[in-house]
Amino acid sequence: MQIDTLPLTAEAFAALDADDPLRAFRDEFALPEGVIYLDGNSLGAAPKAALARAQEVVSREWATDLIKSWNTAGWFELPERLGDKLAPVIGAGAGEVLVTDATGLNVFKVLAAALALRPDRKVIVMEGSNFPTDNYMAQGLVEFLGQGHQIRFAEKDDILAAIDQDVAAVCLTHVHYKTGHILDMQGITAAAHQAGALAIWDLCHSAGAMPVDLNGARADFAVGCSYKYLNGGPGGPAFLFVARRHQGEARQPLTGWWGHKAPFAFSRDYAPAPGLARFRTGTQPILSMAVAEVGLDIFARADMALIRQKSLALTSLFIRLVDERCGSFGFGLASPRDADARGSQVALTHATGYPIMKALIAHGVIGDFRAPDILRFGFTPLYTSYMDVWNAAETLYRIMASDEWKKPVYSAVDAVT
Amino acid sequence: MQIDTLPLTAEAFAALDADDPLRAFRDEFALPEGVIYLDGNSLGAAPKAALARAQEVVSREWATDLIKSWNTAGWFELPERLGDKLAPVIGAGAGEVLVTDATGLNVFKVLAAALALRPDRKVIVMEGSNFPTDNYMAQGLVEFLGQGHQIRFAEKDDILAAIDQDVAAVCLTHVHYKTGHILDMQGITAAAHQAGALAIWDLCHSAGAMPVDLNGARADFAVGCSYKYLNGGPGGPAFLFVARRHQGEARQPLTGWWGHKAPFAFSRDYAPAPGLARFRTGTQPILSMAVAEVGLDIFARADMALIRQKSLALTSLFIRLVDERCGSFGFGLASPRDADARGSQVALTHATGYPIMKALIAHGVIGDFRAPDILRFGFTPLYTSYMDVWNAAETLYRIMASDEWKKPVYSAVDAVT
Repeated sequence: MQIDTLPLTAEAFAALDADDPLRAFRDEFALPEGVIYLDGNSLGAAPKAALARAQEVVSREWATDLIKSWNTAGWFELPERLGDKLAPVIGAGAGEVLVTDATGLNVFKVLAAALALRPDRKVIVMEGSNFPTDNYMAQGLVEFLGQGHQIRFAEKDDILAAIDQDVAAVCLTHVHYKTGHILDMQGITAAAHQAGALAIWDLCHSAGAMPVDLNGARADFAVGCSYKYLNGGPGGPAFLFVARRHQGEARQPLTGWWGHKAPFAFSRDYAPAPGLARFRTGTQPILSMAVAEVGLDIFARADMALIRQKSLALTSLFIRLVDERCGSFGFGLASPRDADARGSQVALTHATGYPIMKALIAHGVIGDFRAPDILRFGFTPLYTSYMDVWNAAETLYRIMASDEWKKPVYSAVDAVT
Repeated sequence: MQIDTLPLTAEAFAALDADDPLRAFRDEFALPEGVIYLDGNSLGAAPKAALARAQEVVSREWATDLIKSWNTAGWFELPERLGDKLAPVIGAGAGEVLVTDATGLNVFKVLAAALALRPDRKVIVMEGSNFPTDNYMAQGLVEFLGQGHQIRFAEKDDILAAIDQDVAAVCLTHVHYKTGHILDMQGITAAAHQAGALAIWDLCHSAGAMPVDLNGARADFAVGCSYKYLNGGPGGPAFLFVARRHQGEARQPLTGWWGHKAPFAFSRDYAPAPGLARFRTGTQPILSMAVAEVGLDIFARADMALIRQKSLALTSLFIRLVDERCGSFGFGLASPRDADARGSQVALTHATGYPIMKALIAHGVIGDFRAPDILRFGFTPLYTSYMDVWNAAETLYRIMASDEWKKPVYSAVDAVT
């Protein structure tokens, strides 16, 4: 079926669902009735198995087995166990990924490690329009170090030009959180290496959304979160990747006891564990960690090529529907029209985007709003159907055509995460 | 009832239980049948309400309400909400405590803040025999900063002498993880201030175990975990305290977006939130956070003076029973015999402690072992009964008197946390 020429009819969309090789995955998620959830790029939906797993951790592992679960339930090894499950999803090898801590903390760790590997260089290249926590963490690190590092901000088309012999590391998010624009991981990493710099990739908006090939791109470090496309639960643990070739030398400064070479010797002085384990910090939130594994287990059965194929079909069709049905209502497209440059989301712009998004949410289509004017719609191929796309666009049309969105109830401001 | 002269009979212990003003709390915990759990100083028991809370977070807040739970379920404010619930338990005021991150990370934050407040001083006083993650984190921080800071290790009786005009901060654990020895928070803090230094207290083994009065002692910063006496769940979030008088000036380097003054403006450059909120880092593991609140809610109804009174009775009686029943088996007492200097645990020493502890565990008495020779028994007044103490000592006696502990099955080594 050619997506670009598909007839824009409900029947055609229903037929795509009927033929969808991923359709069975939708039944694995606990989606509420009457909701079209297009915000899995912010908080992934709950796998149905997550409830049973949470119950098991609380009732059996914690309440019944108590302290011995550190051994019998493998709590201490969760970062490695989950990391090895995530590795194939992001093009990493076994022993290169830890699921641990939060994204910003992992940025701090791998950026500190990268700077220490390039002690004579003082520049970090970052994208100023990126989701800010990476930039904030880098700023905190630079100020704390007090060694004259500076952050050179560049936007997507200027990144290559910003990489020169002064650059210690580029630290970039693979897919932009607002627009969904994909940066060229392979090309930028190669350019960084050519200049003698290291490449750090934040996969928050690409891990689980599309094939990612960290080792194919020769990435040096990476970070990301589990709670978006990987469906790991609210605030679920983040992850980090350290390429095997750096694991002998790379060090990080958050030297908690889980990163010690002999944590149960309880010795006075820190000595880093060999390899990746030194990127562990301390005791992890086991309940959140254990539930995140449920999301990762689903990906062990999912074909990332099929996910990407469906993702592009969903986003392309949504753009076509908005163009055709809502073309007169003042929307712009902030996401790339070129499918190859687009992640798994569509960002529309509208001068009064906030009340429009609130009206959509009130009518069961859940996206989110990012100031000043972006309506974000995330498409998660494991549980977003083609009919969801059809119905979301229809709802948007009705809200715009009826002036429903102008009702005062939709203009009150509240926090959006 | 005089504990020191109580007849050592099962009847007398049962009578203490019958009169125990805290006895109703035991029903709030899901303790397994046939187990005497004396390891709540490592992993607190599960409140029965934790299961329902975990189910609610997964099924309603995550699966049903999805992204809007950031607002409707107050996820973003959990660190403050839980912090304010914990504050009275540790002698802090509202707005002085955050429940967030892990203990070691919080050590990193408050120690960095303390060093920045004393830029002309280069010494940190710590206890070398402390649970090592605080020391490791301080070592990582010092090495990373590269400004010539040094850690001056001192043991309990030498701490005051180690505090001089070079000291930027003392960073000590209130109750020793192995011995249960209580450091004099008031006196050491006063000595630190007298020398111009700041005092950081780790409350991992005292929060929830005894009255703690951070503000009464004029402590500057504090950290601790929720998963021991506070029953917050395995690896549950830690906490930190910043005295109000420092909140205007203190800064920390893990500058994630949750510590920004306007996190939802998504601006490029970091600007610290006013006050305590700048000690937030990034997105928190919501499921673990929410379940930790259940443990804190119990403490809102618990009288810390009664907890301390019962704690001392439990530990004193256990010591008396071991003295009387097991005096010939080669045990020593690593914990203070003086009740005022003792936290809520009893540490026995024995040359072959490891197989003895394994035999105890096999017979349903769960303590833990710390190399090279310490058997630790934690007493948690909310759910430890006087008969538990009686039965634990009886079990120890039977294991020693029968040479049960010499069976080969108990000598195999496995990891203990």
